[in-house]
Amino acid sequence: MANFKGHALPGSFFLIFGIWWSLKYSFRYMNQNGKNRKMNYYYRKIEIIDGGVRVFFAIIGILAEQFVPDGPHLHLYNDHDWIKLMNWQHCTMYLFYGLSGFIDMLTFLFPVIPLGLDRLLMSTAGIIEGILFYYHVHNRPLLDQHIHFLLLYTLAGGVICTFIEIFLRDNIVLELFRASLVTAHGTWFWQIGFVLYPPSGGPAWDQTSHNNIMFITMCFCWHCLAAVIIVAINFSLVCGLVNRLKRFRGEEHIGIKKLTSDSNSQAALLNDTDEE
Amino acid sequence: MANFKGHALPGSFFLIFGIWWSLKYSFRYMNQNGKNRKMNYYYRKIEIIDGGVRVFFAIIGILAEQFVPDGPHLHLYNDHDWIKLMNWQHCTMYLFYGLSGFIDMLTFLFPVIPLGLDRLLMSTAGIIEGILFYYHVHNRPLLDQHIHFLLLYTLAGGVICTFIEIFLRDNIVLELFRASLVTAHGTWFWQIGFVLYPPSGGPAWDQTSHNNIMFITMCFCWHCLAAVIIVAINFSLVCGLVNRLKRFRGEEHIGIKKLTSDSNSQAALLNDTDEE
Amino acid sequence: MANFKGHALPGSFFLIFGIWWSLKYSFRYMNQNGKNRKMNYYYRKIEIIDGGVRVFFAIIGILAEQFVPDGPHLHLYNDHDWIKLMNWQHCTMYLFYGLSGFIDMLTFLFPVIPLGLDRLLMSTAGIIEGILFYYHVHNRPLLDQHIHFLLLYTLAGGVICTFIEIFLRDNIVLELFRASLVTAHGTWFWQIGFVLYPPSGGPAWDQTSHNNIMFITMCFCWHCLAAVIIVAINFSLVCGLVNRLKRFRGEEHIGIKKLTSDSNSQAALLNDTDEE
Amino acid sequence: MANFKGHALPGSFFLIFGIWWSLKYSFRYMNQNGKNRKMNYYYRKIEIIDGGVRVFFAIIGILAEQFVPDGPHLHLYNDHDWIKLMNWQHCTMYLFYGLSGFIDMLTFLFPVIPLGLDRLLMSTAGIIEGILFYYHVHNRPLLDQHIHFLLLYTLAGGVICTFIEIFLRDNIVLELFRASLVTAHGTWFWQIGFVLYPPSGGPAWDQTSHNNIMFITMCFCWHCLAAVIIVAINFSLVCGLVNRLKRFRGEEHIGIKKLTSDSNSQAALLNDTDEE
Repeated sequence: MANFKGHALPGSFFLIFGIWWSLKYSFRYMNQNGKNRKMNYYYRKIEIIDGGVRVFFAIIGILAEQFVPDGPHLHLYNDHDWIKLMNWQHCTMYLFYGLSGFIDMLTFLFPVIPLGLDRLLMSTAGIIEGILFYYHVHNRPLLDQHIHFLLLYTLAGGVICTFIEIFLRDNIVLELFRASLVTAHGTWFWQIGFVLYPPSGGPAWDQTSHNNIMFITMCFCWHCLAAVIIVAINFSLVCGLVNRLKRFRGEEHIGIKKLTSDSNSQAALLNDTDEE
Repeated sequence: MANFKGHALPGSFFLIFGIWWSLKYSFRYMNQNGKNRKMNYYYRKIEIIDGGVRVFFAIIGILAEQFVPDGPHLHLYNDHDWIKLMNWQHCTMYLFYGLSGFIDMLTFLFPVIPLGLDRLLMSTAGIIEGILFYYHVHNRPLLDQHIHFLLLYTLAGGVICTFIEIFLRDNIVLELFRASLVTAHGTWFWQIGFVLYPPSGGPAWDQTSHNNIMFITMCFCWHCLAAVIIVAINFSLVCGLVNRLKRFRGEEHIGIKKLTSDSNSQAALLNDTDEE
Repeated sequence: MANFKGHALPGSFFLIFGIWWSLKYSFRYMNQNGKNRKMNYYYRKIEIIDGGVRVFFAIIGILAEQFVPDGPHLHLYNDHDWIKLMNWQHCTMYLFYGLSGFIDMLTFLFPVIPLGLDRLLMSTAGIIEGILFYYHVHNRPLLDQHIHFLLLYTLAGGVICTFIEIFLRDNIVLELFRASLVTAHGTWFWQIGFVLYPPSGGPAWDQTSHNNIMFITMCFCWHCLAAVIIVAINFSLVCGLVNRLKRFRGEEHIGIKKLTSDSNSQAALLNDTDEE
Repeated sequence: MANFKGHALPGSFFLIFGIWWSLKYSFRYMNQNGKNRKMNYYYRKIEIIDGGVRVFFAIIGILAEQFVPDGPHLHLYNDHDWIKLMNWQHCTMYLFYGLSGFIDMLTFLFPVIPLGLDRLLMSTAGIIEGILFYYHVHNRPLLDQHIHFLLLYTLAGGVICTFIEIFLRDNIVLELFRASLVTAHGTWFWQIGFVLYPPSGGPAWDQTSHNNIMFITMCFCWHCLAAVIIVAINFSLVCGLVNRLKRFRGEEHIGIKKLTSDSNSQAALLNDTDEE
């Protein structure tokens, strides 16, 4: 959908997941007494829901792209030419993100599926989006090309980061990096919408001005900054919350300490955070 | 051979190996009680045959490129110009894949040859194919260039994946990734044949239409999707089969258990799959 | 600031940090009895000051870019066009380096913040500088473009090196590499100033001469060489100094040896340096 | 030196080192009882000589480039323009390889210098050669550009390989890869000389023919193949020789076995080669 909504929709999806992941991974990092069997059970459940929501978002995206009034309605080819290829390309993009979510669900449902396949598919979905965008903007005005090309930077970062996560799973630095990139990816989609299809109905930007291109480049950097700050705030909120909870439960623990032996793992955790 | 067969032949080779590898690696992953001396012996045999078949395919390819009616018949230069350079380039491509298969055989025949050399040569064969294709399509119509360039994505993925396998051998995620890429590489060769040399004798595609290029890009993504699905089906088939076999033999084992001590490895395996 | 000072200022910042890092990391490498609790305490303090100085430099840079007589004075847009975008871009660059310094401080102040985030932010700051420079020089004379593009090589090296350091912390080879690259980055900023805005008031260089471009390329290599030599000299100075100190204290130690047991770590260190 | 000799000289240097390294690393791989103190002593000596020869070659190269009759004789600038920049660029290239050799010597002479710095400098020398070549061939005929650009592939491979060796030292696969790339780099320099400055005095090649470019691309692949074969032959020669020697000495050992205890390392080695 070459309009404001067509960019706001994926933008919102990415933004929601960026913020959600920054919370999820911060929380898990702060609760690293992962040997806790019950906790692991919940994390597994959360990962399955996480994947499921991504499948759901992908289905919404595909349906929206296909069945908006000016969409292709599942027709790909009439007698002369391809129909609404741009919508079909967006569907393909959603399809791969949906597939990635689906594999995530499978990975945590069936232990026989090797861990890492979920990250591999997520990485592939990013590459596919990159390939589509790269050839997407051919023959368009300069500013349009440039503003879409900048998406490739966050994509490239995300693909590299996710690919490394195949081998280095549960690395908080990489996970927060991914969350930031996905957040910036989301807000940048919104920015594209605002620049190319101003919802206020104002005049579109001058697509050939070199100054506009220079500003957009800088604006992209500011989006990255904003994403870093959002993730940092989420991380510190979770940090504060978990520490307060720990102190609260810790005081209860002290009372029970002499009765149970699970305070060892608590102590081990504290050491862990100190050392690392 | 700039015709349909010249693309269907390598396409079939890649496709066969993509499917075969997805089966082979899934099977080995499900039978990871690799300390089993007898099993290792069989795997080694299979690897040698695997390499041998690749050498055989490469020889077929080279002979076909050289001795088709309009081939160069081993002549490289006449008094004015180079003869049928495109066929010679394809031969070079086959030659490197043949060499890679040959080194695979040697690696598993002679234990003195360091493991990893086979992956290095496979990676090199991919780079060589990439270099040849990259300069191959100079001065050709836009669609022709684009459709060949897309091969570079699967190649790049395969080269990176195989290069990592030098250091991270027997990683099932990488192996399934490689199998998917080789499968997509194979089906894409078929697609090139259908687009540039329609075997039905219909009219060739409009090589300059921007819409065709956009469709082809999207079509490439669908081939990747198909490859992922093929590999996923193969993996789950093997999974199901091996689990059924295990359960079948497992019941026998239970009977013998008290007599033999090799059930430990079986238990270790089960733990292994659970944990990982 | 498109003048000599605008390049000398960041050049000096990078140069100072290149030299300082080559000294800091050499010193820590020579004092690797890091189990020493007191030493670690000092190193932590030094890292915090290191980050703080970078924040301070970034603030100076931003203020200078904003409030020089021909700067934007915090105005970004008047009714027609963007104001002084180049100064705003430089501010953005400083902002990210400042952020990186700030995260460095936080990482060493609060143990809950995972190590590696500081390197990730430093790497990101490099990428942001690279993106800004890459689009910065569009539509400028050839020599101007080329001389700015060469900065991308040191940046790319620095980004890759810092990114690896997320996973391979405290690797002296990477740290010295980073110090050299930052030094070369700094001297090259000075070189850009001298070439594009000769402070002697002499005529600017011919911006279209191919020979000038060839010389500048070679000159960049010489800057790299100079940076390597500077870092090598600093390393050997620190080496000599620390060895002399060790020998001096070592003789005292011999006297005390029988009384204390901390000479073990000393011996372990010596073994360590020999083996590695 | 833009003539045949100017390409044959560096070509020979690279070729000699490619062959020498394939022998050296094969030999060390076959004698991996590296705990042997005496052997290590010899290896260290060999590495120092290896570095020394590279310094020597670099000095020859620099002197040749400077003091050939049409060379710059150390003059860089006359009143109008730069003098013989191409010779100066070649000197810079030699200089970095010389520096790399020098650091190699230092690394093995002084144990305080961290291992890995030698590989880092070698990698840097490759990047510098790449940067110089990349801008070297601007504004030249198409074939000339292409034939020089192909050097960048062996260079890129060598740089990546050497960079990995900083972290994965003494990996035989990487070492043989490096040896092959250096060999191919050397033979390709000879090929450039033969194509651009035919020593037989025959006519130069048609620099604009697309067929020539296609042939040259393929020819480059054949050089890679030749390099792989040369390294493979050297490896198998060393293999055969060392195994024969071992068997020869092994029989003696059997006699002495009961007297000495160093046969353990021998046995460990045999296990090692089998397992790996």
